Amino acid sequence: MALPTAVRLFEMGARDGLQNESGPVIDTAIKVELINRLSETGLKHIEAASFVSPKWVPQMGDASEVMSGIDRKPGVIYSALTPNLKGLEAAIAAGVDEVAVFGAASEAFTQKNINCSIKESLERFAPVIELAKANHIRVRGYVSTVMGCPYEGEIAPAQVAAVSRELLDMGCYEISLGDTIGVGTPLKAKRMLEAVSQQVPIDKLAAHFHDTYGQALANLYAVIEEGIAVIDASVAGLGGCPYAKGASGNVATEDVLYMLNGLSIETGVDLHKLALTGHWISAQLGRSSGSKVALAMGCQGS
Amino acid sequence: MALPTAVRLFEMGARDGLQNESGPVIDTAIKVELINRLSETGLKHIEAASFVSPKWVPQMGDASEVMSGIDRKPGVIYSALTPNLKGLEAAIAAGVDEVAVFGAASEAFTQKNINCSIKESLERFAPVIELAKANHIRVRGYVSTVMGCPYEGEIAPAQVAAVSRELLDMGCYEISLGDTIGVGTPLKAKRMLEAVSQQVPIDKLAAHFHDTYGQALANLYAVIEEGIAVIDASVAGLGGCPYAKGASGNVATEDVLYMLNGLSIETGVDLHKLALTGHWISAQLGRSSGSKVALAMGCQGS
Repeated sequence: MALPTAVRLFEMGARDGLQNESGPVIDTAIKVELINRLSETGLKHIEAASFVSPKWVPQMGDASEVMSGIDRKPGVIYSALTPNLKGLEAAIAAGVDEVAVFGAASEAFTQKNINCSIKESLERFAPVIELAKANHIRVRGYVSTVMGCPYEGEIAPAQVAAVSRELLDMGCYEISLGDTIGVGTPLKAKRMLEAVSQQVPIDKLAAHFHDTYGQALANLYAVIEEGIAVIDASVAGLGGCPYAKGASGNVATEDVLYMLNGLSIETGVDLHKLALTGHWISAQLGRSSGSKVALAMGCQGS
Repeated sequence: MALPTAVRLFEMGARDGLQNESGPVIDTAIKVELINRLSETGLKHIEAASFVSPKWVPQMGDASEVMSGIDRKPGVIYSALTPNLKGLEAAIAAGVDEVAVFGAASEAFTQKNINCSIKESLERFAPVIELAKANHIRVRGYVSTVMGCPYEGEIAPAQVAAVSRELLDMGCYEISLGDTIGVGTPLKAKRMLEAVSQQVPIDKLAAHFHDTYGQALANLYAVIEEGIAVIDASVAGLGGCPYAKGASGNVATEDVLYMLNGLSIETGVDLHKLALTGHWISAQLGRSSGSKVALAMGCQGS
């Protein structure tokens, strides 16, 4: 089939990225500036915060302050992760445009992370999704471990499809398929997508692939060939991999964008501005950019 | 079309890799040990040396010593770069199994590098190829800058096809298509290959893609879809990019192999042994492995 003519990039750096960076808690002012810079690159969808207990995720303890600190650029959707009603209420109070809930395709992963079954985890989301919808706030559903689990190993595509369908039926407008540990390869990605797209229309699916094994772009190209047109990525590849020290996590938005530009797929995002933003935040974190494109372009500074 | 059932990996680390590493000249003993370790991984094709003037490439000044120092494993082909008759004679004396000549698809690149036209550069190879064939030594032809040139920018696929055809007609058994600066993207790779494969049968073509912009695996997957079944890669991603400081060059063999394993494509190479070899040589060079797979596997030391 023909490749999509446009892809929507969903920027993960300020939340999924910073949340998984090792090191001290990052200043609210830096998060605010990162989001403001990102919103000037042409990105229309920015995950800005996570309304979780600071006891569990200290890195995201300032979600309300971040939301009130940023300049809200018209046309940009600022979203936040809201795992429970308390988080959702705070997110609504902070004026987020959109929220997200986070499921997994692996029973072992779900048990290990939130100490319940997949079924129970989805039941907990039901009131969150209901309240969000009552407030006219769209809910995105994440499904993690779609191509492999650090505890369970292989994950059946049918299992990914079932969880995705359930989240759709519960009211999520889009399901983001996460290769949480980056173990997928192109045909595996295609087969997983094939199973899921029998349960969820492909235009309601997004690819959230990590680059831990360097496979993310190959996998993204493979699913773009199948019609995927929403891609999650993180500027400068922010966010390590909690399951492999020193390994990378999120695929760098710059590298995805370079590929999409080469494929003549429209995104509306300025690569040069994005790479500068990636260099800037990397410098704040005292590391070099995790984007090969940014390193090759050599546009240091800000 | 169906993906190939097997791919031949052509290991570049000991030559193309080490030649482009910055830093002091590497000890002959380290090169010898690297090649010996590589030959124990299941790799059947190893570029071991370059018989060029040490005045131009000091890193490769010990080519004869390297060839005489290694353990020649039966079944493994040890090849060397031989840009001229003098180099070829030394390579024959050193007992290489196979040699290679190095052309480019860009006039500007050829002028800048060897101060002559593409046509003149190919004429210089004619006696090299003749003498090699008279000695029953196969000659591989490299074509660089197949998806872009640091001086000329875009390169017409027809130009790549013409140079490839010329090298084939001169007697090269295989043409390796080099994305020297790593600027290609998947459709560009497909289109280039489409043009070349009209002049050279696809089973006489190899992909030599650099990862400077992080695109190598996506591009490799795209050309595997078209039937490419020989891939050049460099253990640990050895070899930087001379055109962008701090950027990467060769794609890491481990990362290519991980993808091929995931695609159920046979190579005969042991990923674990290869990653250990990559960690070993990286430690010798005082850097960390450029392979994301090796970092994720975390198998340090040897």
